Amino acid sequence: MNNKAKTTNQYLKPFNTKRNEKGNLEISNCDLVELAEKYSTPLYVMDEVTLNNIIEEYKDAFKIYEKTRITYASKALMTSSIAKIFANASFGFDVVSIGEIYTLLNAGIDLKKVSFNGNNKSIEEMTFAIDNGIDHFSVDNFWELEKLNEIAKSKNIIQKIHLRITPGIECHTHDYIKTGQNDSKFGFDLSMTDDALDLILNKYKNLKLTGLHAHIGSQIFETQVYYDEVGVLLKEVKRIKDKFSIELNEINIGGGVGITYTKSDNPPSIYEIANLIIESVKFHCTKYNLQEPVLYIEPGRSLVCSAGFSLYTIGSTKDIKGIRKYVALDGGMADNPRPSMYQAKYEAEIANAKQGQNFEKVTLAGKFCESGDILVKDIELNNPQSGDILCVYDTGAYCYSMSSNYNSAQKPAMVLINNGKSDIIVKRQTLEQIVQNDVIIDRLK
Amino acid sequence: MNNKAKTTNQYLKPFNTKRNEKGNLEISNCDLVELAEKYSTPLYVMDEVTLNNIIEEYKDAFKIYEKTRITYASKALMTSSIAKIFANASFGFDVVSIGEIYTLLNAGIDLKKVSFNGNNKSIEEMTFAIDNGIDHFSVDNFWELEKLNEIAKSKNIIQKIHLRITPGIECHTHDYIKTGQNDSKFGFDLSMTDDALDLILNKYKNLKLTGLHAHIGSQIFETQVYYDEVGVLLKEVKRIKDKFSIELNEINIGGGVGITYTKSDNPPSIYEIANLIIESVKFHCTKYNLQEPVLYIEPGRSLVCSAGFSLYTIGSTKDIKGIRKYVALDGGMADNPRPSMYQAKYEAEIANAKQGQNFEKVTLAGKFCESGDILVKDIELNNPQSGDILCVYDTGAYCYSMSSNYNSAQKPAMVLINNGKSDIIVKRQTLEQIVQNDVIIDRLK
Repeated sequence: MNNKAKTTNQYLKPFNTKRNEKGNLEISNCDLVELAEKYSTPLYVMDEVTLNNIIEEYKDAFKIYEKTRITYASKALMTSSIAKIFANASFGFDVVSIGEIYTLLNAGIDLKKVSFNGNNKSIEEMTFAIDNGIDHFSVDNFWELEKLNEIAKSKNIIQKIHLRITPGIECHTHDYIKTGQNDSKFGFDLSMTDDALDLILNKYKNLKLTGLHAHIGSQIFETQVYYDEVGVLLKEVKRIKDKFSIELNEINIGGGVGITYTKSDNPPSIYEIANLIIESVKFHCTKYNLQEPVLYIEPGRSLVCSAGFSLYTIGSTKDIKGIRKYVALDGGMADNPRPSMYQAKYEAEIANAKQGQNFEKVTLAGKFCESGDILVKDIELNNPQSGDILCVYDTGAYCYSMSSNYNSAQKPAMVLINNGKSDIIVKRQTLEQIVQNDVIIDRLK
Repeated sequence: MNNKAKTTNQYLKPFNTKRNEKGNLEISNCDLVELAEKYSTPLYVMDEVTLNNIIEEYKDAFKIYEKTRITYASKALMTSSIAKIFANASFGFDVVSIGEIYTLLNAGIDLKKVSFNGNNKSIEEMTFAIDNGIDHFSVDNFWELEKLNEIAKSKNIIQKIHLRITPGIECHTHDYIKTGQNDSKFGFDLSMTDDALDLILNKYKNLKLTGLHAHIGSQIFETQVYYDEVGVLLKEVKRIKDKFSIELNEINIGGGVGITYTKSDNPPSIYEIANLIIESVKFHCTKYNLQEPVLYIEPGRSLVCSAGFSLYTIGSTKDIKGIRKYVALDGGMADNPRPSMYQAKYEAEIANAKQGQNFEKVTLAGKFCESGDILVKDIELNNPQSGDILCVYDTGAYCYSMSSNYNSAQKPAMVLINNGKSDIIVKRQTLEQIVQNDVIIDRLK
């Protein structure tokens, strides 16, 4: 057992956030107003110091279980530099598409520590992954088993796989349910695993099953749910051992660890989760008389979200007396669709210095032509005015990765900061790129 | 008055949709299975014949009011070829960003019939629009008035503008509300228009106000709401005439006309709406003793949605006995976020020939790693199998335009079909484009 008071995912703001002598907000010794001036807004920013903190916390929390393999769930935020940071930390990757694999290769990262997830991988994707030496697939369904075996056979290789199962546990932030069966598009229902095992052991000779995979939810605040999930996985390993006489020595428990988006969020620390997971592994291995397995974990949001923030410039404001004051930003649902998509909540503050304190309740509107493009409803800001720079916290995950070109908007740039240094890691899209795939056909000219 | 039984927005499927002699679905004499083979899936398809039908219906429905100006609300679907189709039909454009203006210029379309909408246009956008000779701005707020006047002054021009007002009418598909004040991020509340007029007439000498603009909602099935909206706008024109001694001779009633996404949708015909709008213009002009104004309308969805459909290939399926059968597609929330974002409903059918009829209720899952990525819940399909081509109807609006690269997915191609011909109008994104703006910084190498 090990402990640490609080881990990064339990903080609302990046590691070193403060007001500097100018009164401007400063993160990792970078003045946010200067960042906005230098790189223009809207701007995604990732603080490498905070990112390294959480990386070290994950490593430290799981070091007591040597067989842990941390694979970053890339869908949370995938760029070549971000991938490189995780590769440099010896993390593996959980990828879900050919595009993510391509990005890893682009960053010079091989696929030796990469697993491929997803409910409907295409033949093209499976082939590309195999051709580039991916470690294993988390196979989701019977169709994939068949296709993957065909591809592996055609290449005369034995492909390592895990089976993704639906463990009958589903968790959403504040509570979780255990059911006999899961209504999920993902994975093999427990009633299907025997048929899958039969096929793998007797028919699909080019597949080698080494483990089971499950994923129980997203932005999870519970801890017991991970304990129970490990129990379900190891119980299934035991059942398979008894029935098929093979002992699977890898389990993958997925990700889902929650982070602090608002002051009312209260996620557990990484240590708390790690301790419980490892305790469950040991308990259930003893109970079922199993070898201790290799343990894969797939954190995504909890690795990148708290290190990220977005900078916007305030443009217009609209004060409807007695009803609401709107403060409009130069970004919105195209660069951060989470408020429109999930009714997600964010904290924000004015980054530039203000004389005194004059907080008022306003609503932060995006610039996109849609009533629903509201970034934060009812937030207290210190005298927000046109030209002010606004910092929205915890936008490291599922913002850039879900961003669109709605309203023909260019995607913002992303900057990596580290103790006073700042570097572009994603360039802002150009106007030329907005139309780069457009073709004007002759009959319309 | 004029009439026609039904207009394009009242049909679920494109104009010429049928099964051909092979049993395959065929639209505009193009076999959808052949389209899928030729261009691969997922694929956006626009039927030019259906598009031309609705264009002609709009022109025909409004021809009895000569002063009508139809401006296509580009945010629904903006590509260079689509823009060219509307320009060739003498339509103007309602744009909302520099990216949309850039696309028009890319297609060789000048800005003489273009209006610029939006609640937070940037200085860069306003300057770019003026430099390229935009017809007018629909000014949304006091900040924009001030900035626009500054820019126009610096260029020594008089810029034509409309004022966007919130008319106190808000409509959502099946009903609408009239209120004294609107809680909207858009436009001048009616209590603010006098102050705006004062500023324009006495201070902002580089702005020339010619009209009022309003927009009352989206996917509207009501008709009376348009009648009332025109009444509000002309009442305000009258009030301004009496108080400020200027008669604004342009009104813009926005868009919002509904279309048929599912069998239960029942939008009015374009003729029905046109007749009521024109009747209201004439009635209120007589009532208030006003000249008949130039009438701008801004249809978006109703111009492009019914002409569009998406093709997918079915990959995996998962049958959870007694619960649900999932059928997974090779696209989903990245190419069509409307089901996740708005719980939007779609109709779909298997495009390839099937022996006999064996309909079953299934749920169409997307391929993206998220439980919420469900394209259609509970739909009856004829014996859906891996490898089948699926056609989802009415995806012409707000699918490509809202598409993302979530899961590092490449955006699909778009094809324009016309009576047996097919041409790429948007090329599929390449893997290289997924990382084209990525920068790997030195300290990470």
